[in-house]
Amino acid sequence: MSTFDVIGFDADDTLWRSEDGFARSEKAFVELVAPYAPQGTDVFAALQATERRNLSVFGYGVKSFGLSMVEAAVTVTGGALPSTVTRELVNLTREQLIEPVELLPHVPEVLDAVGRAHRLVLITKGDLIHQNYKVTTSGLEHLFEEVDIVLEKDPATYARVLRRIGVKPEQFCMVGNSVRSDVLPLLSIGASAVHVPYHITWTHEQVDEHDQHFAELSSLAELPDWLAAQTNP
Amino acid sequence: MSTFDVIGFDADDTLWRSEDGFARSEKAFVELVAPYAPQGTDVFAALQATERRNLSVFGYGVKSFGLSMVEAAVTVTGGALPSTVTRELVNLTREQLIEPVELLPHVPEVLDAVGRAHRLVLITKGDLIHQNYKVTTSGLEHLFEEVDIVLEKDPATYARVLRRIGVKPEQFCMVGNSVRSDVLPLLSIGASAVHVPYHITWTHEQVDEHDQHFAELSSLAELPDWLAAQTNP
Repeated sequence: MSTFDVIGFDADDTLWRSEDGFARSEKAFVELVAPYAPQGTDVFAALQATERRNLSVFGYGVKSFGLSMVEAAVTVTGGALPSTVTRELVNLTREQLIEPVELLPHVPEVLDAVGRAHRLVLITKGDLIHQNYKVTTSGLEHLFEEVDIVLEKDPATYARVLRRIGVKPEQFCMVGNSVRSDVLPLLSIGASAVHVPYHITWTHEQVDEHDQHFAELSSLAELPDWLAAQTNP
Repeated sequence: MSTFDVIGFDADDTLWRSEDGFARSEKAFVELVAPYAPQGTDVFAALQATERRNLSVFGYGVKSFGLSMVEAAVTVTGGALPSTVTRELVNLTREQLIEPVELLPHVPEVLDAVGRAHRLVLITKGDLIHQNYKVTTSGLEHLFEEVDIVLEKDPATYARVLRRIGVKPEQFCMVGNSVRSDVLPLLSIGASAVHVPYHITWTHEQVDEHDQHFAELSSLAELPDWLAAQTNP
């Protein structure tokens, strides 16, 4: 029997694809904006820098990204941006918000298997309306005892969620694709975490180095066996 | 002794000014955009219609409003919008997000008085990062047992919050400026509500008519006495 009572799952790029949508919008941004920028301008780098500057005020999510696209486009074109392109950038943002959810392989059967022996919670950061849209249209909502859409995945936030669902850190294990958001904060509060990498990691989620040890699975499909192998010491 | 165990407070235009910020941005929008729109265009009506159309996908809050401002400006100017104006609209959005919180009269002393005899929770809808910024910089956060930033203030959401904080509907009273969001959904689940009107109501929050009866106070300052007068039947 697993040592954990509750398993927490990240959502974006753990249960369903998310970075792919941003990557498509970024590609479209470059194609739309580059023709109006001075030759030699790295419009993609400008977009990333704008996003980074806006992060503390705009927060995570597609709407913040959309506002940064508009702002970066105006900046790099030095006033030469046609408003038809501005409209396209708003349209890209809207399309990304209503894109159908594309589940990653094995997700429903893994959640079903893990849910038989554990309580499941979903802990995701980002935009309230967009995350809620994805959760409700994914067909997975009923598997989770609680869905928490949080502002920041830091140790204090996780501690608050754990208190609220009534579980001790040593009985909680988080599963996600981001070492920075889904693994390190859990280890720091005495909980466990499993890293399941996704092939794209948002640059703002990358950690340069860390000296922590934690489990890493190459696929979510390995999770039920991994959990079954964890036994009380 | 009051019949209520927990008092819930709305935030925007109940504890601090919010619509004033939108009103300022709307005024600036009209001044910035009207000169580029064909004569006789009602650019403010176009903005409101764009907001309304985007509400189900963008959700509430300043970032959604900012994207709608950009989109409406492109539309009403028929392609004649200078990108310098687009930049100004993004700047308005950012400024609105970092505007200092302006508390409404009597708020700290009323919360202090009501908090002596009740548990207090804050229940607000909108943008996670913006609402969190306002709560943390207001200096009021410590007075609340829980802060819930929700997607929609409907009966199901209130029922979930009440279950989570462990209070029965008949022991809960909500206080807020919106009949649609802070009063009617509570009455429908058997809880109580007090309406404290604000001088501006967002058009999307207005209700045409309702046949429910509930208390209405002209100022939050009247709340402690009103609560003290409610006794168990």
